[in-house]
Amino acid sequence: MRFAMAAASTVEKTAITPRRAEDFPEWYQQVIRAAELAEPSDVRGCMVIRPWGYGIWENMQRQLDAMFRATGHRNAYFPLFIPLSYFAKEAEHVEGFAKECAVVTHSRLEVDAEGKMKPASPLNEPLVVRPTSETIIGATYAKWVQSYRDLPILINQWANVVRWEMRPRLFLRTTEFLWQEGHTVHESEAEAREETKRMVDIYATFVRDHCAIPVFGGEKSESEKFPGAVQTLTIEAMAQDRKAIQAGTSHFLGQNFAKASGIQFQNREGKQEFGWTTSWGMTTRMVGTVVMTHGDDDGLILPPRIAPTQVVILPITPKEETRARVLEMCDKLAAVLSARKYVDLPITVEVDRRDLGGGVKNWEWIKKGVPLRIEIGPRDLEKNSVEVSRRDQPVKAKQTMWMNELLDRAPELLASIQQNLYDRAKKFRDEHTRKIDNRDKFYDFFTPKNAEKPEIHGGFALAHWNGSRKVEEQIKNDLKVTIRVVPLDTDAGPGRCIFTGEPSARPVVWAKSY
Amino acid sequence: MRFAMAAASTVEKTAITPRRAEDFPEWYQQVIRAAELAEPSDVRGCMVIRPWGYGIWENMQRQLDAMFRATGHRNAYFPLFIPLSYFAKEAEHVEGFAKECAVVTHSRLEVDAEGKMKPASPLNEPLVVRPTSETIIGATYAKWVQSYRDLPILINQWANVVRWEMRPRLFLRTTEFLWQEGHTVHESEAEAREETKRMVDIYATFVRDHCAIPVFGGEKSESEKFPGAVQTLTIEAMAQDRKAIQAGTSHFLGQNFAKASGIQFQNREGKQEFGWTTSWGMTTRMVGTVVMTHGDDDGLILPPRIAPTQVVILPITPKEETRARVLEMCDKLAAVLSARKYVDLPITVEVDRRDLGGGVKNWEWIKKGVPLRIEIGPRDLEKNSVEVSRRDQPVKAKQTMWMNELLDRAPELLASIQQNLYDRAKKFRDEHTRKIDNRDKFYDFFTPKNAEKPEIHGGFALAHWNGSRKVEEQIKNDLKVTIRVVPLDTDAGPGRCIFTGEPSARPVVWAKSY
Repeated sequence: MRFAMAAASTVEKTAITPRRAEDFPEWYQQVIRAAELAEPSDVRGCMVIRPWGYGIWENMQRQLDAMFRATGHRNAYFPLFIPLSYFAKEAEHVEGFAKECAVVTHSRLEVDAEGKMKPASPLNEPLVVRPTSETIIGATYAKWVQSYRDLPILINQWANVVRWEMRPRLFLRTTEFLWQEGHTVHESEAEAREETKRMVDIYATFVRDHCAIPVFGGEKSESEKFPGAVQTLTIEAMAQDRKAIQAGTSHFLGQNFAKASGIQFQNREGKQEFGWTTSWGMTTRMVGTVVMTHGDDDGLILPPRIAPTQVVILPITPKEETRARVLEMCDKLAAVLSARKYVDLPITVEVDRRDLGGGVKNWEWIKKGVPLRIEIGPRDLEKNSVEVSRRDQPVKAKQTMWMNELLDRAPELLASIQQNLYDRAKKFRDEHTRKIDNRDKFYDFFTPKNAEKPEIHGGFALAHWNGSRKVEEQIKNDLKVTIRVVPLDTDAGPGRCIFTGEPSARPVVWAKSY
Repeated sequence: MRFAMAAASTVEKTAITPRRAEDFPEWYQQVIRAAELAEPSDVRGCMVIRPWGYGIWENMQRQLDAMFRATGHRNAYFPLFIPLSYFAKEAEHVEGFAKECAVVTHSRLEVDAEGKMKPASPLNEPLVVRPTSETIIGATYAKWVQSYRDLPILINQWANVVRWEMRPRLFLRTTEFLWQEGHTVHESEAEAREETKRMVDIYATFVRDHCAIPVFGGEKSESEKFPGAVQTLTIEAMAQDRKAIQAGTSHFLGQNFAKASGIQFQNREGKQEFGWTTSWGMTTRMVGTVVMTHGDDDGLILPPRIAPTQVVILPITPKEETRARVLEMCDKLAAVLSARKYVDLPITVEVDRRDLGGGVKNWEWIKKGVPLRIEIGPRDLEKNSVEVSRRDQPVKAKQTMWMNELLDRAPELLASIQQNLYDRAKKFRDEHTRKIDNRDKFYDFFTPKNAEKPEIHGGFALAHWNGSRKVEEQIKNDLKVTIRVVPLDTDAGPGRCIFTGEPSARPVVWAKSY
C-alpha cells in the first residue's frame, strides 16, 4: 500500500496500462477492452462489436446517411455472394482481392460415416463472400440502365464485407467489417468525377464536424489506388503514434467497371455509350480512428456528436436514508436534460443506478469516454447543486454548478468539448506535420530516435516527389513510409523531387500508416 | 384496339396483370416488379432490394428499433461466420438448419494450370454462414456472464442471414435475407418467459400499428417450433389468398443453448446455474406480408407509417408558359407539407419533376402504393386548389381541395388511410376465419371449390385438437394444412378434438401457409 502511494506520488496513476508513450499498440487494445467497444471472437479475424462500440457506429451511420440522402442518394441492398465468374470480370480488381477471399463451395452439411459433420452438396460455381460489391452491383445496373434518362443512379448500401486478414486488429483490420459502399452511374466523365469529389468532401466534413478529426484530402498515387479505379480520392487522419490512418475513400472508376459489367446506355446523341461509375466507402475502422485520435491514458474520449450517451448521471448514495431522494433528483435531472437539444438532437442521458461504489462507476465511464459526468450526492439535495466533470479535462477537475446553470449550459458544454477535441487533434497533427526539402532530413524524420520505441517517428512529411513508382518503392523498402495522399487543393506550387531532383507538380504527404 | 376497348367496357382495366383473383402468386411477383421493390439477382435465391423496397424496410427497422430500445435492449454485432463445431453443439438446432447452409471452405482464390480461377487455401475448420446466431452469440455470452449481477443481457442485432432455398420467392423465402435477431439471457425461467412474451407482443403491436395488419398470436405446436427451443411464440397474418404468413417469432430457449454454449452464472444463493435464454426475430419477409395484405389489382398499397414517401406531388405541365409557375407552386407546397408532422415525424413528400407524361407518372406512383397523390396544374394556380387522390380509394376518386385545407388535413388524411387499411385487412381476415366443429366441415373448408384455382380455399379454421402430432401429420398430408398458432389469450374454453373426439384445452388456428 505504501509502495503504491509512493509510486503515485512520482507518476500519476492512469486507468489504462500501458500508457500511450509506453506501448501505443497495446494501449489501443486495452482502451478498446476497457471501454467495452469490441473483442476478438473465436472466428479468426472476426470481432464482436459490443453495444458501446456499436452505438458509436450507429451514430456515425445515422449522420452519414443523412448527408448521403441530402445529396440525392438512396439506400438499397445487394447480395452477399458474388459468383466467381463476375468477380473475375475486371482484371485489376480480381488481382487486388483474390488473395483475401472467403469462398463458399457447399450448400449443405451432412454427417459422414464416422459420425462427423462435413460440407455436402458442392456448388457448380463457387461463390465469393463480397469483399466489395462493384461487380455484383454492376451486373444489376446493366439491367437498369438503357438510356441517359435512367441516369444518374445514386445508390448506397450499408453492409458487411469480408477480406481475409492474416494479422487482424480490432476495428482497424478485421476479416469481416461493416461499411457503407456507394455505387453511382453517370452519363459523363465530368459528372462522375464531380460525384467522386463530392463524396470525399462529405467524408471530410463528417470526420471533421462529427468525429472532431482533421484530415488531409487528395488523391492516392497509382500504387495505392483501389484495384480497378482510374482515380482514388482519400482522406487521411493522424493517430497519436503519428501514423496515418485512411478514413474514407472515393473512387472514380472511369468506364472500367461499366465495360466489365456491360453498363451501356443510349446517350443524348442517340449513340450507345458505357456508363461512368464511382464507388465510395467508409467503414467501422472509423471507430478505431476515433480511439487513436482522441484517447488518453485513462481510456477513450468520445466527441459528443458520436457518443452513444453524452451525459451520465452518477448518484452518490453513501447513506440508505437519502438514497431514494438522491435517485429521484437524478431521474428528474435526466428527464429535463433529455428534453434539451444539442445540434438539433435530444441530449442523450443515462442514470447509472447500479449498486456499485461511486468510484468504480466513475472510472468505468471515464474509460468509456462519455463526454460529461455528473455526480449528485446527499449534500447536493439541499443546495440544488451538481458536480460536473468534462472528459476532455483532467479527471480531478470537477466543477460545482447549480442545477439550473447545468441545464442552461449543457448544450454549450458539449459544443465546447467537441471543439476542444478537434482543436487538440489539429494541433497535434500540425505539430507533427513537417515540410521537408531534402532526402537526408526526410530519412532522419522517419528514423526512430529510440530503438526501444520504434513506433515513435516523425509524423507526416510534406515533400516533393517526381511521380515515379520506383521512388515510392525505394522509400517503402527503406523506411516503411508511403505516399498517403497527393493533395489537390493546395497553395504549394511546383518544385523539385527531394529524392531525384526532378520536377514535381506539388508536395505530397508521406507517412507510415495503418 | 376495338377489342381492347370492348374488354375494358366489361371489366375495368387494372395496372397489374394478372389480377389477384386470377393468379395470386403471379400477381404478387408482378406487384413487386411494378413497384420496383426488389428483383431476383443472378445469385440463385438471393434478391436485390431496390430503393423503394429498402425504404420500407428502413422504416420498419427504425420503428422496431425504437421499441426494442424503449424496453431496454441495445444493438451489437456478432460474426457472420460460425465455426462448424459451434454450430453442431445443439443437436436439434443443427438438425434443423444443416440442410440449408452456405459453407465457407477456402480463404483465397488462385489461377490453376489451365488459367482458371479456383478456390485455394482450404480452412482447417469449415465456417457456416450464419442461418441464425444462437451458437456464436452464446459462445460470447458465456465469457460475459459470471454472476447474476451480469444479468439480464438484452441485446439485438440487425444482420443478414443465409438459409439455402431451393424454391425462392422474393421477400417470402430467399437464400439471403435481412432481419433482426434479439438474444437475451436471464437469471430465472420466469423472467425469460416474460421476455419471450414481451417481444412477441412488441411484434404484434408493431405489425398492427405500423403495418396495419391484424394478427393471431400464440404459441407454435411442437412440430412447428424453432429447432432447439422449448417454446416458440408467433404472430400470424392472413394474405389475400387466405394463406397464413408468419410475421415474427419469439423463442423461449430454456437452458438448452446455455448448456450447449456454457452460459453459467453464480446465482443469488451462490450456486452455479445455467442461464435462461430467449431469441426473437422479424425479417424482410414483412415487406412481402405488407404486399400480400394490402395490395390491389393496381399494385402496392402502403400504410402511411411505413411508406418511404407519404405524399407525392405531381406537376401537370401541358403548356410551356405555365410550367415554371406550376413547378414553383409544387415546391412551395412540398416545403410547407414537409414541415407538418404525422405521428411525431415530418411528413415525407416528393415532387416528381421528371419530364414524363402526367398519366405515366400517376400510374407509376399508384403501382408503388404511395398513400397520397396530389396533382397541381395550370388551372390550380389561380384557384389555389389541388387534386387529391388517396391510394386506398378507387383511382378515379379524386377530391379537389383548397391548398390550405390540404395543409390542415394532411396528417388526418394519412391517419385515415392507415386506419382504413387496418380495418379492411381485419374485415377480410375475420370473414375468412371460421370456427369449425367437425371433421367433414374442416375438410370441406380447405378443399378448393374451383380446380383451376387451387390456391383459393377457406382461410383460417379455429378448431379443437387433441395435441397429437399424428393428427397434425395426417391433416398436413391430406390438405397441406398445418397448425399456425395455438392462441394463448383466448376466451374459448376446452372442448373435443374434431378429428379424434379426445379432450382439447382450446381451439387452435389451422391454415395453409407460406
